[in-house]
Amino acid sequence: MGLEIGFVGLGNMGLPMAANLLASGHRLTVWNRTQSRAEPLSGKGATIAPRAADTIRRGGVLVSMVADDAALTELVAGDPALAERLGQGGIHISMSTVAPATTRELAEVHRKVGSTLVAAPVFGRPDAAAAKRLWICVSGPAAAKATAQPILEALGQRVFDFGEVTEAANVVKISGNFLIAAAMEAMGEAFALAEKNGVDRSALASMLGQTLFACPVYQGYGAAIANRRHSPAGFRLPLGLKDVEIVLRSAREANAPMPTASLLRDRFVHALAMGRADLDWSAVALGAREDAGLTD
Amino acid sequence: MGLEIGFVGLGNMGLPMAANLLASGHRLTVWNRTQSRAEPLSGKGATIAPRAADTIRRGGVLVSMVADDAALTELVAGDPALAERLGQGGIHISMSTVAPATTRELAEVHRKVGSTLVAAPVFGRPDAAAAKRLWICVSGPAAAKATAQPILEALGQRVFDFGEVTEAANVVKISGNFLIAAAMEAMGEAFALAEKNGVDRSALASMLGQTLFACPVYQGYGAAIANRRHSPAGFRLPLGLKDVEIVLRSAREANAPMPTASLLRDRFVHALAMGRADLDWSAVALGAREDAGLTD
Amino acid sequence: MGLEIGFVGLGNMGLPMAANLLASGHRLTVWNRTQSRAEPLSGKGATIAPRAADTIRRGGVLVSMVADDAALTELVAGDPALAERLGQGGIHISMSTVAPATTRELAEVHRKVGSTLVAAPVFGRPDAAAAKRLWICVSGPAAAKATAQPILEALGQRVFDFGEVTEAANVVKISGNFLIAAAMEAMGEAFALAEKNGVDRSALASMLGQTLFACPVYQGYGAAIANRRHSPAGFRLPLGLKDVEIVLRSAREANAPMPTASLLRDRFVHALAMGRADLDWSAVALGAREDAGLTD
Amino acid sequence: MGLEIGFVGLGNMGLPMAANLLASGHRLTVWNRTQSRAEPLSGKGATIAPRAADTIRRGGVLVSMVADDAALTELVAGDPALAERLGQGGIHISMSTVAPATTRELAEVHRKVGSTLVAAPVFGRPDAAAAKRLWICVSGPAAAKATAQPILEALGQRVFDFGEVTEAANVVKISGNFLIAAAMEAMGEAFALAEKNGVDRSALASMLGQTLFACPVYQGYGAAIANRRHSPAGFRLPLGLKDVEIVLRSAREANAPMPTASLLRDRFVHALAMGRADLDWSAVALGAREDAGLTD
Repeated sequence: MGLEIGFVGLGNMGLPMAANLLASGHRLTVWNRTQSRAEPLSGKGATIAPRAADTIRRGGVLVSMVADDAALTELVAGDPALAERLGQGGIHISMSTVAPATTRELAEVHRKVGSTLVAAPVFGRPDAAAAKRLWICVSGPAAAKATAQPILEALGQRVFDFGEVTEAANVVKISGNFLIAAAMEAMGEAFALAEKNGVDRSALASMLGQTLFACPVYQGYGAAIANRRHSPAGFRLPLGLKDVEIVLRSAREANAPMPTASLLRDRFVHALAMGRADLDWSAVALGAREDAGLTD
Repeated sequence: MGLEIGFVGLGNMGLPMAANLLASGHRLTVWNRTQSRAEPLSGKGATIAPRAADTIRRGGVLVSMVADDAALTELVAGDPALAERLGQGGIHISMSTVAPATTRELAEVHRKVGSTLVAAPVFGRPDAAAAKRLWICVSGPAAAKATAQPILEALGQRVFDFGEVTEAANVVKISGNFLIAAAMEAMGEAFALAEKNGVDRSALASMLGQTLFACPVYQGYGAAIANRRHSPAGFRLPLGLKDVEIVLRSAREANAPMPTASLLRDRFVHALAMGRADLDWSAVALGAREDAGLTD
Repeated sequence: MGLEIGFVGLGNMGLPMAANLLASGHRLTVWNRTQSRAEPLSGKGATIAPRAADTIRRGGVLVSMVADDAALTELVAGDPALAERLGQGGIHISMSTVAPATTRELAEVHRKVGSTLVAAPVFGRPDAAAAKRLWICVSGPAAAKATAQPILEALGQRVFDFGEVTEAANVVKISGNFLIAAAMEAMGEAFALAEKNGVDRSALASMLGQTLFACPVYQGYGAAIANRRHSPAGFRLPLGLKDVEIVLRSAREANAPMPTASLLRDRFVHALAMGRADLDWSAVALGAREDAGLTD
Repeated sequence: MGLEIGFVGLGNMGLPMAANLLASGHRLTVWNRTQSRAEPLSGKGATIAPRAADTIRRGGVLVSMVADDAALTELVAGDPALAERLGQGGIHISMSTVAPATTRELAEVHRKVGSTLVAAPVFGRPDAAAAKRLWICVSGPAAAKATAQPILEALGQRVFDFGEVTEAANVVKISGNFLIAAAMEAMGEAFALAEKNGVDRSALASMLGQTLFACPVYQGYGAAIANRRHSPAGFRLPLGLKDVEIVLRSAREANAPMPTASLLRDRFVHALAMGRADLDWSAVALGAREDAGLTD
């Protein structure tokens, strides 16, 4: 028997996620800034709310998947504020990729009104979301996580619990994105070295993806970087920079220098200077090739 | 029906490789600087040569697996010089990890006397060598590679051909080691950020190794770095620095800046300054943690 | 014959500057958050205002020297807002070190009410301020700068005009601070290399300061870094980090990668991780020495 | 009354230096690889030797100013070897810019035959050499330095003594060149930031050279970098890279990480990839500008 769930944020990720919750037998009241995106869900049984705050009742459950920190803060603490509406006993499962500091602040906002924030960011692209193949990292108070568990299981292939500090899962998520970006830069450098020595970039990427690095990040991005195929964008380059900047800001707050993240930031800024805002974030790897004088 | 093969270099890698060739029916004449290491092979049918040059006859086949560029150069071009002994029609399968420039020079030495150098460096530790699980990258003239193929197949699980430029496989090998080191540094930074935010390092490494980075490098080194378990050394830290320096020298010759390699070099030098020469090269990741003030 | 001038911000820099304006025959109405700091000026003829907005009249002249961007924004656009009070024809000479973006935004706030913002940040420590030895960089609309000129001349030894773009002088100021920090880091690295080679750090600093680098930055900071004398702080380390972060944010907005600034940021963050918040910003140079294993 | 001096190396620096020694009343026997360059000195009283070893007699004094480490090693330890000819009591004043390790090794070669090596590298361009305006750093055994002192005083405006470790002055010299290169890179970054913000590069360089950085390096190179005037080359870019590589090799031997030197190496390599081998080494600053997308 399903739960009553409010769902806010029907972008490329949120829409298939909401559809999966409906398919699992949950009852959804949904809202999206651009209301037309909610309509397909209406046919699947979702109720469309006029305002975000109307997706939930006091003590209920909310799932949010919005664009960035500002949108999440506006949702939770804006006017009308969802946290207040949620009130005593309410649970907010926040699945967006945001800064740990944002989660920390908003968790406090929830606590003050008796509700609980659970962080549950995901790894995976829209196609993985549609196929329930997301990897979900979760953190927050145990009781609220227990309530969230069946919802998360309806959305992904695996849930990883990172304890009771609410923002922990956000730290994990941005660390993962940082590691992907670091791998892309390293491949960019290695492939430039190979190319200048007459070694075929694709052959190198293919070998690595079948051996030492037989995993999704090196296989997918390795092929894209080897062939310089950065369009259409699966994840736009400015979003990659945004995430690296969240990493650096978090590292700053924690007094943890991260020179690889600094290098990545410089590379992303360079990519913007070269007019690459519409390319996939894997285009960050072009910098190493250009530094080597390969500009065709 | 096996081949007559000379085999030079019976270290941790070379010894199990030679044993595998014997087990595959090849006839070996072996030599090692420290002769006692050759004795176990005697009982398996190998002939022990008094000098390296005595392992082969004119026009024969040699496999070498020696410590470094200097040892390989001494072997090929020293006194007596193996290349001359090998002479017209001889084939030298060079499996050591050396600089592309060294291979380029030695290929020329072979060419002058009518023999052929084939580069065939490997990925894998001694246990992988013993289990014929090595990944082998090969490059050089096609005819010589054809002769080498059954020998390489007796040594590894997969052979990747990188074309006719002799040093190409060496470029691939050092690129692979560079990518491993870059991944270790990135994990060191990410795990330091996590630790300072109260996130469990091992839980993070474990999740990554099951999802985005479900591949040997991130699984094995991820666990080691998360737990700061860098002893006993599978690959000693100064050898890691040696390989990064080969990368940087090759990049210099090719006019390809590699800022991640520069960062790695600084980290390895720091590790030596901290007295870590006997640790595994994954200890390079300790630098990021110390930079964050975590010094216990 | 002097001018009527409002003066806000009587910190270590502002206080001697205000005293110099009084000594030059100008009439000052002053305000400071901590009012007691204003009292010494009272004896020199200054009028003490109850609120910042009371230091000026419509169409008058204001000089501000406050702590940071937030304080300046609060002053200009808070409640009551100085810009509105200043009104048509008023001139605000903003001498604080702030981000160019802050100046750009506040210039617009002034423009809307008919007044003009002039940026006039300074180079020099409190002793230079007291001795009228400041170097002042100025930018903004020409007419307003003409009014500001005699005031600036009463405060420093030299005024450098950087044109009509209001925030230009702020770009110059943060560039200068960046160059100082870059020089300190480079000295830290060079002196560590020297020390590990048995060369006397002080002798090296002294020679450089008499030859290639016979200028204030290398002489003063060179001696401090050579002798690791970072206390008492002339300019506290977190302020140095603040300025480097302004540089990086400005560089980000301009799509200009600055790898040396990224390195500096990492070094400052490391210094904070080591508990050096109360030291002079020249303590950023300790990082290079520690990286070399010199930790006594 | 002058001394009998052998002088080897009559390049752009050596020639005016030798002329100054003659003008000071010393008697010179000179040699240069390209003998025609020695001829102008013949008219000033110098004796031209047929071979380098013929410039000195046993127990005499030699001054050398050659191109690089290889040339110096060949001179001292080649065939015929100058060190042997110099023999018991001889003094060799080595003024070339070479690696400390080279000096250390050659000092030992001298010691074995009873002679003494004194390191005395110089700061200054050919015009400074001609005007006796060189700054000279000296190190080595005290007695030999005492003999060298009047010779050095005839060559420069100031002699700085760095003690008895022979290679100390070489460490100082490469540290100085490193600091110059670091300053050039930092200016390149600052000027790119300024340019993208509409600030005049030359005005910025000029202000800095009159204030914080009123010293030769920032004044001269600042103007060159602001105006992108890198030709004709006063010091060719590949020589700058050579010196940075000496710094990094020395830092490696001393286990001292130098991230700014690593960055410089990457920038110099990039400059070579862009075909700038014939420009002045200050062209290293172009990299920061291009990274910001300014490619006109």
